[in-house]
Amino acid sequence: MRIDVLTLFPEMFDGVFGASILGKARDKGIVDLSAVNFRLYSTSKHGQVDDTPYGGGGGMVLKPEPIFAAVEDLLLKRENEGVAVTEPTLSGSRPRIVLLCPQGETFTQKKAEEFAREDHLIFICGHYEGYDERIRDGLVTDEISIGDYVLTGGELPAMVMIDSTVRLLPGVLGNENSAVTDSFSTGLLEYPHYTRPTEFRGMKVPDILLSGHHANIEAWRRRESLRRTLQRRPELLERLTLTKQDMKWLEELKREEAALNG
Amino acid sequence: MRIDVLTLFPEMFDGVFGASILGKARDKGIVDLSAVNFRLYSTSKHGQVDDTPYGGGGGMVLKPEPIFAAVEDLLLKRENEGVAVTEPTLSGSRPRIVLLCPQGETFTQKKAEEFAREDHLIFICGHYEGYDERIRDGLVTDEISIGDYVLTGGELPAMVMIDSTVRLLPGVLGNENSAVTDSFSTGLLEYPHYTRPTEFRGMKVPDILLSGHHANIEAWRRRESLRRTLQRRPELLERLTLTKQDMKWLEELKREEAALNG
Repeated sequence: MRIDVLTLFPEMFDGVFGASILGKARDKGIVDLSAVNFRLYSTSKHGQVDDTPYGGGGGMVLKPEPIFAAVEDLLLKRENEGVAVTEPTLSGSRPRIVLLCPQGETFTQKKAEEFAREDHLIFICGHYEGYDERIRDGLVTDEISIGDYVLTGGELPAMVMIDSTVRLLPGVLGNENSAVTDSFSTGLLEYPHYTRPTEFRGMKVPDILLSGHHANIEAWRRRESLRRTLQRRPELLERLTLTKQDMKWLEELKREEAALNG
Repeated sequence: MRIDVLTLFPEMFDGVFGASILGKARDKGIVDLSAVNFRLYSTSKHGQVDDTPYGGGGGMVLKPEPIFAAVEDLLLKRENEGVAVTEPTLSGSRPRIVLLCPQGETFTQKKAEEFAREDHLIFICGHYEGYDERIRDGLVTDEISIGDYVLTGGELPAMVMIDSTVRLLPGVLGNENSAVTDSFSTGLLEYPHYTRPTEFRGMKVPDILLSGHHANIEAWRRRESLRRTLQRRPELLERLTLTKQDMKWLEELKREEAALNG
């Protein structure tokens, strides 16, 4: 997979692209990551990439030309490497051209899985400024937000999407199970984990985890996963297929919660 | 404000802490940012910070000792600087000790505003591993997730929360209005922006924005904000106080949408 990020702050990506999972995926040749400064594609002498908005008002707006030129240059280079690409201005074309913006669709694990099936992703990161609407109309295939909070730029959201996508690529995670057993993948929140020491500052590991009785441990874990999900994200339970045992535990847990709170 | 991040990958933060808004806020002395490798607080010879889970199963679990020791060292240093801190093990104590985890409360702009009023934030980032439950029980004040997707570690979520918090601190954003007029702050999504050129590859700037008639431009922008919100995030409209004119426009927009889709 190839991932390109268009940004005015490529140096923000150095630490993240080099470290941990992304660094390893790169070293293994599973993903090719690069951050491109689109200021290089400015047509003005002073490298200007934004301008004041038509109609007045504060703030600056990213001009369409440098973004279009940068994307087209990436596609041309890719074509020269022998990869067929369709016209970038057709929506739904390859590659996926993703605009990071607060008005976009909210990123979810499902979107990460969708991205993980692509050959080439391009992320466009604005910074303080708005985007000229023609970047939306003529270039991008997806507009995405990572959540309902305001950030200074699209760089951190791009990193988040890249991390969550790349870790799904085959061969990236050491333990093949790791991607499957995480939260959200099972539909329930994780049960509590404990490791050594058995007692730390008066806080003890539950006896059952030290019992060696695997069936009881599995049952305890399932019940605690249900408890945590009930406490924190009850809406997740509605989307899930529950066993009869699960439903019995949930009834017990609801009574326990009610007793605690009342 | 002081922000400390406990992580096994402090180098991931170099590019982000130095660049853009965070770099400027640091240079101005508004925020003091540091990423601390909690492996330094391991009590084992080989710097071990995780161990296998009691009760069996795959994956590793972060041990409580290095995390407790790192937090307490941060508090001690802070106390030596003359800042009074309460016991770290009391929930609700200063500083806020934030655990990044998928099971946490979802981060929102409201939480960023809450964090922006604190003196000291400590973020604890796990990586692949789970957390020993006693870290939750005895140390942290907040468990936060930035969205419903799986990431390799807490580092990127910590960066996201730090960016969205620090940009709210007085003196950080150049234009005092910038923090206010963003999406979410007004409750509506932003209207389309345009800048030069007036025509780009056949795509034109709407005439009204070139008209110089400010009242009409304001009306167009409000109506387009309503349109975009209606199209993409209709649930936001329900939380909003709308004028009579807004409601009239919404009726028109709904008819326009229906005509387009039918």
